[in-house]
Amino acid sequence: MIKFESFYDAIRSRSIPNPSSEALDSVYEAIVKEKVSNKSGYYNLPFESRAIQDSRQYIQANQEFLCGIKHLVIIGVGGSSLGTKAIDTMLCHLPNRKAIELKFLEHTDPIEISKTLQGITLADTLFLMVSKSGSTIETSSLAKYVIHHFELLSHPKHLVVITDEDSPLCHWAKLKEIYCICIAKNVGGRFSVLSSVGILPLMILGYDVQSLLDGAKIFVMNFLHRKEDHLLRKAIFLAKSRERYQNNVLFSYSSSFKDFNSWYVQLWAESLGKIDAYGKKVGLTPIALIGSIDQHSFLQLIVQGSLDKTVTFLNINRKNYTEPKIPDLRMEFLENTDYVNGASFAKLISKQQIATKETLQAEGIPTDEIVIDFLCEKSVGQLIVYFELLTSCVGKIMDINTYDQPGVEFGKIRLKEMFDVKT
Amino acid sequence: MIKFESFYDAIRSRSIPNPSSEALDSVYEAIVKEKVSNKSGYYNLPFESRAIQDSRQYIQANQEFLCGIKHLVIIGVGGSSLGTKAIDTMLCHLPNRKAIELKFLEHTDPIEISKTLQGITLADTLFLMVSKSGSTIETSSLAKYVIHHFELLSHPKHLVVITDEDSPLCHWAKLKEIYCICIAKNVGGRFSVLSSVGILPLMILGYDVQSLLDGAKIFVMNFLHRKEDHLLRKAIFLAKSRERYQNNVLFSYSSSFKDFNSWYVQLWAESLGKIDAYGKKVGLTPIALIGSIDQHSFLQLIVQGSLDKTVTFLNINRKNYTEPKIPDLRMEFLENTDYVNGASFAKLISKQQIATKETLQAEGIPTDEIVIDFLCEKSVGQLIVYFELLTSCVGKIMDINTYDQPGVEFGKIRLKEMFDVKT
Repeated sequence: MIKFESFYDAIRSRSIPNPSSEALDSVYEAIVKEKVSNKSGYYNLPFESRAIQDSRQYIQANQEFLCGIKHLVIIGVGGSSLGTKAIDTMLCHLPNRKAIELKFLEHTDPIEISKTLQGITLADTLFLMVSKSGSTIETSSLAKYVIHHFELLSHPKHLVVITDEDSPLCHWAKLKEIYCICIAKNVGGRFSVLSSVGILPLMILGYDVQSLLDGAKIFVMNFLHRKEDHLLRKAIFLAKSRERYQNNVLFSYSSSFKDFNSWYVQLWAESLGKIDAYGKKVGLTPIALIGSIDQHSFLQLIVQGSLDKTVTFLNINRKNYTEPKIPDLRMEFLENTDYVNGASFAKLISKQQIATKETLQAEGIPTDEIVIDFLCEKSVGQLIVYFELLTSCVGKIMDINTYDQPGVEFGKIRLKEMFDVKT
Repeated sequence: MIKFESFYDAIRSRSIPNPSSEALDSVYEAIVKEKVSNKSGYYNLPFESRAIQDSRQYIQANQEFLCGIKHLVIIGVGGSSLGTKAIDTMLCHLPNRKAIELKFLEHTDPIEISKTLQGITLADTLFLMVSKSGSTIETSSLAKYVIHHFELLSHPKHLVVITDEDSPLCHWAKLKEIYCICIAKNVGGRFSVLSSVGILPLMILGYDVQSLLDGAKIFVMNFLHRKEDHLLRKAIFLAKSRERYQNNVLFSYSSSFKDFNSWYVQLWAESLGKIDAYGKKVGLTPIALIGSIDQHSFLQLIVQGSLDKTVTFLNINRKNYTEPKIPDLRMEFLENTDYVNGASFAKLISKQQIATKETLQAEGIPTDEIVIDFLCEKSVGQLIVYFELLTSCVGKIMDINTYDQPGVEFGKIRLKEMFDVKT
């Protein structure tokens, strides 16, 4: 369903040795230990029925109300919005996707707030406030705005809250009789898309969320049964050669991956940019591109700039896409463009990806490739959990805490001080 | 109108010395020499009347036709699309912006092609094919598709071509009696937005393009009169500390800068990722973020990851934006979010930017800041040329050819081979 292939061997023979089976075992065992320790609850999400049960219960109890909903507005930032957005953009071509407009209120930029709320009327809108604690200042401020503007406390059906068990937001929702769905405290925002954070909105939109979890579950099972060791190898390569290759490019060949790219950037940057167990600042820098367009933007730097990047290609098998075609139209003086005439655009973009990959390989740049046979709930579940497991493995090898984000807290404290001191 | 401020001194005193006045003179003189040599024609664009004259001539001759246009579709990729898109996204709030929908046909992704052409009917659409030679395979293929699909050769008024003087595409346009506007050969794609490549579409959309050029002209004049030496200092800092700080983050605090960010990434990556005069692969890696949302995605990596990034903040003076406000709404259990109640969102995002800047400075990360008083044609012209001149100066210090992109050609050759060999 998804094919993973790495082309590190050409590079390895030159400078970086192949990891020993002991090295693979050691990372694998550390991850199993971490999973069992419940340090992060994300490992268990594909195996749990809780998110689906909670979401189904809400939907069944509000069936009539939800039939009239035309807009679903998620109030949430970072891990509370990026995952749902990523999955919807990858899957919105599916026939079961309902004609509900999905919007995100996540930006404190005044321009963006008005733009997002344009055309929104209370009658056909459901707001979903997503926040682990409720005190993320963007989310609480935007929620306050919407609660005030649409008088949501008098129309509590139009607001649903997703938050941590026992969080301040959970208590507020109960007090105000707002429907509230809770997630486990040990599921961090950027690892939360397979909890109710993603499952509820995706289920409302009509997606087959059971298949999403099933795809993830199969991959985690295979990983645990040592059938996905390519992931361990890739993690070791990236973590161990990080002083040489500090930047990891995800080059996704379809605009369907636009928001998946942003999800990956958060997952990678926020998990892997840390002070390690020895007090050293370490990190791997994610860069996310879309092919073919970014061949005309970033590619030159990869090919001829400093050799400090690895490149992961993410692609779709387009064998069955025969339309639209490039017409068999000869343009005088431009005969050198005729070689693609009659081919499908799908063939062109596929060949462009291969040509780019071969160019990078010829320059000695480490590449690997992920090819998805068909973009559906199952394959997307697999893709999501692949990147989550990869992040955990890399973090483990780098001796860091993959699941916190202390660096973001400094700015939050400073912000509060500024408001306290002068207005 | 735009305030430039750098905070490198704190870093300098530790490890990187302040450049001598001789160093500043030397870069300045090299740039003046390059300008005079006409190696790149972009330096002259703000001083030339050609783009405006050519564009005005077309618009005046087609006034009636253009009155009926509701969609302007630009067929072009990279430098042929990013600049126009960036300026329109920054300025679309201006009252003189006409109600014409601007779209870009730039992607060979089949999904994206259908999405872009959705709702397009020939009667109210003008297609603009933009390509220096005409043989960029994305642009020619997409143009062929549109020419065939909308029978443009029978309706030549609906197609305009912008291309290099004497290019194959220019000859084709003349043969087919398609309106054609030419630009100078020595203006590279990513430096071309102030030529007819940007001026024609922006004029059609109703913008005051003269003010755009004037803003750019004033900045170039000031630079030439040594009144903008902060730019030389910044270029020297970035180029000379590039082994330590390989990544340059542009952290733009408004979604209005979303497409400007992409323009910057192309300009920086494609200009500065090169093999230098001594045969060494060098480069500076651009990373573009939007605040405040990316505080919840990438910031952790900047703060606690490897110290390999400089950060440029791009911001708007929001003193006069008092709406919308965060309502004075107390949420029980969430009293710790009350400190922003009553403030405008504009104030919140401004303080968020300051808090982030101070956090980075406290960590010893080199920062600088660009604050635009008011987003209008003049300030945007200035901003564009500021980044172009900065790129030229950095390229000069790095001993590279800032204006070519040989690394992109390899893939093009490989692509053609693949189509030739097997289908």
